Amino acid sequence: MGLRLYDLAGAEPERRFSPYCWRTKMALAHKGLLFDAIPWRFVEKDAIAISGQGRVPVLIDGEHVVFDSWAIATDLEDRYPDRASLFHGDGGRAVTRFVNAWADGMLVPMIARLTVTDILAHLDQKDLAYFRKSREERFGMTLEQVTADRDTRVLDFRKSLEPMRSVLATQSYLSGVSPAYADYIVFGCFQWARCISSFPLLLKDDPVWAWRERLLSEFGGLARNALSYDV
Amino acid sequence: MGLRLYDLAGAEPERRFSPYCWRTKMALAHKGLLFDAIPWRFVEKDAIAISGQGRVPVLIDGEHVVFDSWAIATDLEDRYPDRASLFHGDGGRAVTRFVNAWADGMLVPMIARLTVTDILAHLDQKDLAYFRKSREERFGMTLEQVTADRDTRVLDFRKSLEPMRSVLATQSYLSGVSPAYADYIVFGCFQWARCISSFPLLLKDDPVWAWRERLLSEFGGLARNALSYDV
Repeated sequence: MGLRLYDLAGAEPERRFSPYCWRTKMALAHKGLLFDAIPWRFVEKDAIAISGQGRVPVLIDGEHVVFDSWAIATDLEDRYPDRASLFHGDGGRAVTRFVNAWADGMLVPMIARLTVTDILAHLDQKDLAYFRKSREERFGMTLEQVTADRDTRVLDFRKSLEPMRSVLATQSYLSGVSPAYADYIVFGCFQWARCISSFPLLLKDDPVWAWRERLLSEFGGLARNALSYDV
Repeated sequence: MGLRLYDLAGAEPERRFSPYCWRTKMALAHKGLLFDAIPWRFVEKDAIAISGQGRVPVLIDGEHVVFDSWAIATDLEDRYPDRASLFHGDGGRAVTRFVNAWADGMLVPMIARLTVTDILAHLDQKDLAYFRKSREERFGMTLEQVTADRDTRVLDFRKSLEPMRSVLATQSYLSGVSPAYADYIVFGCFQWARCISSFPLLLKDDPVWAWRERLLSEFGGLARNALSYDV
């Protein structure tokens, strides 16, 4: 039995929009591992009960169960050391954790603020009530209020990408001459938005746009060919 | 002739406060290299003319001249490969560039806003006019206006350190189990402030404080023993 990944899906089973699951899918493709991506919705806690928690990604490899995108990436690196490296050494692994923390702490909340109503519009019926309630509690306002000022807020978002632009001015990828897990972490955030929202996060003349384009084309267009918006 | 580092100094020759020079000093100590840190002031362009530009750090090793803290770090790693590594592999080197960009683009401007009047107060007489003019042009206001609201601004600064706290919750250093260049990059920013300002950037119960404490003690207290404020 091959690798099975529980992968967040919307009303359409092929709408796969979790930033964390995208990190894992890019990491699996980087390692050249085939996997079955099983559509999963927020309320389907029973389906992933074997992981002892209630969020995806969950990766199942026979008896071996791993959850949390970072844990999955390090687990893949350790269990498949002879395949293409996700970190290129211990230093890479350690410092990539900072990129992970920056993306989770800065990018994810900002993108959520810009696109949360679009997420809502793509959810499966069974997730609607859970999602609205949990997110409105988190934001302290209605989801419609959250995205109301997104045309001005996106300017702050683009500004927050400045460290990426600075790096991309001197090397093609965050990971160096070729993409690796540091890139997939940040790319997952953009791919999340692209899968559920036609709102333009990036401008075409942004070096981050060009970097994202290259990653969309990786692995035979794994991300580009996903059900998504062309933004 | 040993290594010579041109190192930004204040009115007191032993007040060495450049964040970039501190990165280089920590990197040199990490490599176990002895060096002579020559006090230098902003207007002393002639002293470093051999580097073809006007800023420090400038490291001179016989005929070999390198400037810019990042270039110096990678040069040291390449020329002294058998000594303790600053990056622990190609992945570490590539991704540490992101930490460098984040520190330069986010931390340096925020710390400058919080401490620029304190910098002014410690400058050598000959640097005063140059510094006030160039910085007031950059900020578009007087230096006194810049730091006037620092008691509230520091709250934003502390919040911006969240990615560091997230990393330090799982490993002792940004570079992993032991400090390396990613740590020195960020540490240099704090040491800069500590050398010229009694304004408390960090609270004692912050994990970033504890991390900074450990780095202050590295290399026989190289940074702790520098002329600085105990904040």
